[in-house]
Amino acid sequence: MLNLGDIEGLPQRERARLINSISGFKSANIVATANSEGKTACCIVSSVVHLGSNPALMGVVFRPPGADAHNYQNLSVSGCFTLSHVTAGMYTAAHQTSARYAEEVSEFDAVGLTPHWHGKGEAQFQAPAVAESPVRMGLTVAEDLVLPNGCHFVLGAVQWVDFQSEAQAADGFLDLAALDTVCIGGLDAYHTASRLGRLSYAKPDAAPEVRTDFMKGWD
Amino acid sequence: MLNLGDIEGLPQRERARLINSISGFKSANIVATANSEGKTACCIVSSVVHLGSNPALMGVVFRPPGADAHNYQNLSVSGCFTLSHVTAGMYTAAHQTSARYAEEVSEFDAVGLTPHWHGKGEAQFQAPAVAESPVRMGLTVAEDLVLPNGCHFVLGAVQWVDFQSEAQAADGFLDLAALDTVCIGGLDAYHTASRLGRLSYAKPDAAPEVRTDFMKGWD
Repeated sequence: MLNLGDIEGLPQRERARLINSISGFKSANIVATANSEGKTACCIVSSVVHLGSNPALMGVVFRPPGADAHNYQNLSVSGCFTLSHVTAGMYTAAHQTSARYAEEVSEFDAVGLTPHWHGKGEAQFQAPAVAESPVRMGLTVAEDLVLPNGCHFVLGAVQWVDFQSEAQAADGFLDLAALDTVCIGGLDAYHTASRLGRLSYAKPDAAPEVRTDFMKGWD
Repeated sequence: MLNLGDIEGLPQRERARLINSISGFKSANIVATANSEGKTACCIVSSVVHLGSNPALMGVVFRPPGADAHNYQNLSVSGCFTLSHVTAGMYTAAHQTSARYAEEVSEFDAVGLTPHWHGKGEAQFQAPAVAESPVRMGLTVAEDLVLPNGCHFVLGAVQWVDFQSEAQAADGFLDLAALDTVCIGGLDAYHTASRLGRLSYAKPDAAPEVRTDFMKGWD
């Protein structure tokens, strides 16, 4: 058991590893952007959170923007960014995007991921997604909130979604375990997910129904 | 591939299931509170996000508060709440806390979870945690931001943390997979996590080192 004084007294890295662990498992996405010349940048993020479905809205936490915050700088100018799921097949490449590359280096090139441009010609979305990813989406910046610790909470309105449709159940659910989407524990631990069950909508007078075949939903 | 018009045209529940899936895996926590008479409430949340480690800060998204938002009402008055990890052993009970129980019913009693009070006498923390959970923490409300869709983004400053210390590596990392902490896909799919690897801090000039023994960290 650690009280506030104990937590504050921990060595910086040890505290960061512990506090990054206690929020529970985190989503693993690659945020990608382009600057006004079409030069790409991407970086793994574990801070994507679902905010709403109607309209479809996601939140992403960015650290206090420094000179090396290429993605934050790009999306501030272009007003758009993408999110692409990290899978077991590319988690080491995805992790490597967090290295502090020089501004002239695109993390796509450096780690061996492929930019995927959505739309053609005039209608092309002005941020690339990750071709290797089975779930990707394009978002426009709806709001940019500065948090008390200097981080930015960027709200993104979903403009398009692209995913492997064979992983979608009839009721809309997408089976992320089947797609090998990973989740993150702490700062650096990557995991695949193993199914326990899908549970029916909870009602006060009944125990939830459990389905272990994830493609069978509740219509 | 779905564009904005396609997404907006989906039936409400189908859209909710899809959009809740595409953010990637979500953390599974129980938020718990008490009112001024000490009456408890708890509810599962999948929207906890790590905001910072120094000071230790978490964010939690709450739906637009309605009459049945007992936890939001309680934390607005008391200024404090707890978060407890959901494990494989209690995921159906945790899910059941999302049913709309009447105000006089505590979800702890209704689903069979046990309130755990941190501290004694005058120093007792004014929100209970979940006794069955291997990782729990107490937080005070640092900020309550209203988002454009009416949701509230509550920032919580961590005041204490309690966890099974045998799951902590020497470098501070907490092995959530060993603790059976679950993650959520979409609205209703629960998973345990299977280890891939822990990766060393990424540097531009080197590939990350991979460790599959999660208790071995980088000191």
